[in-house]
Amino acid sequence: MNYPSKLIEDAVEEISKLPGIGKKTALRLALHLLKREEQQTSQLAEVLVNLRTQTRYCRQCHTIADEDLCQICANPRRDSQLICVVEDTRDVLAVENTAQFRGMYHVLGGLINPLEGVGPADLQVESLLDRVADPKNEIREVILALSPTMQGDTTSFYLTKRLRQYPIKITTIARGIPIGGDLEYADEITLGRSIIGRVTYE
Amino acid sequence: MNYPSKLIEDAVEEISKLPGIGKKTALRLALHLLKREEQQTSQLAEVLVNLRTQTRYCRQCHTIADEDLCQICANPRRDSQLICVVEDTRDVLAVENTAQFRGMYHVLGGLINPLEGVGPADLQVESLLDRVADPKNEIREVILALSPTMQGDTTSFYLTKRLRQYPIKITTIARGIPIGGDLEYADEITLGRSIIGRVTYE
Repeated sequence: MNYPSKLIEDAVEEISKLPGIGKKTALRLALHLLKREEQQTSQLAEVLVNLRTQTRYCRQCHTIADEDLCQICANPRRDSQLICVVEDTRDVLAVENTAQFRGMYHVLGGLINPLEGVGPADLQVESLLDRVADPKNEIREVILALSPTMQGDTTSFYLTKRLRQYPIKITTIARGIPIGGDLEYADEITLGRSIIGRVTYE
Repeated sequence: MNYPSKLIEDAVEEISKLPGIGKKTALRLALHLLKREEQQTSQLAEVLVNLRTQTRYCRQCHTIADEDLCQICANPRRDSQLICVVEDTRDVLAVENTAQFRGMYHVLGGLINPLEGVGPADLQVESLLDRVADPKNEIREVILALSPTMQGDTTSFYLTKRLRQYPIKITTIARGIPIGGDLEYADEITLGRSIIGRVTYE
């Protein structure tokens, strides 16, 4: 497509790098911004840069946080002996929205995926083991809430093997959510039920 | 939804102001940017601000342009006696992509829409009449290429009434494109044919 202006072309180029946004949608968004007030664009640009430069990760559970410790880890009313292991921050939000879980989280930052060269060392596995091993934490249960895909199952299997040495209960969320699906798209009821009906790894 | 961080919340808020992007997609985009290099985000922010602050409009046809005069108006090989009237810059791109039109454009910047309070005075109508009236331009034909919707037809009707006083041919693109549809979504072949098969307003 020929664009009438280099500015439009540059904008379309950058916007269409975002996942799920093609050139036509990018052009629509760019022209939308041109019709709106200048302030809206500058605000959008500002929050994106702030997000990227100022975002921190909780030193305990590695979820995205404003402070050194996230709101969940810093909350004394949460059950600190229960850890829910998830792939990323989106999954923390998904589980939080079920209102069925009052424990803590641990964000792995991905799943084991040999094809893409992601091994346990690339994930927050050692810090999870440290949390479980520390007697001060008195962890009594680790819930593995990973997507029921090849990578998720591999990661669950690996974590179970590593965690078995500790005197804790290891559970996984009930497979009420469709096999092959993505955790974040499960509806809140199904995901909530699957936490209540979690099963113990034998 | 409860966000773990104010930065994420702000970003989701701003991104979801864009048309066709909800909170869930906005969150996906924000987390995508967090995973990519910082430079990608700063570049995206920069082109958006540049787009909004530096974009200019061609002084003759009012399409988006880098210079005072757009590339089409500045091109001496285009047929300057033929003006294609369109709603906005997206439609210029759509017609250009058919490669069936070698004349000039005139961007109205909208359509007459009494329900939303848009009247002829809000559009580039007078500047179109000035272009047609100027004997130096030797305009011989005006093609009305507006979407075949209520607003488009109203605008075409209004423009025809105003243009009839000049010794020019007034045509409209053939209604090969579906009635009620949006011009920018027409495929290139259909849109190209509709320019070739344009019919004279009697």
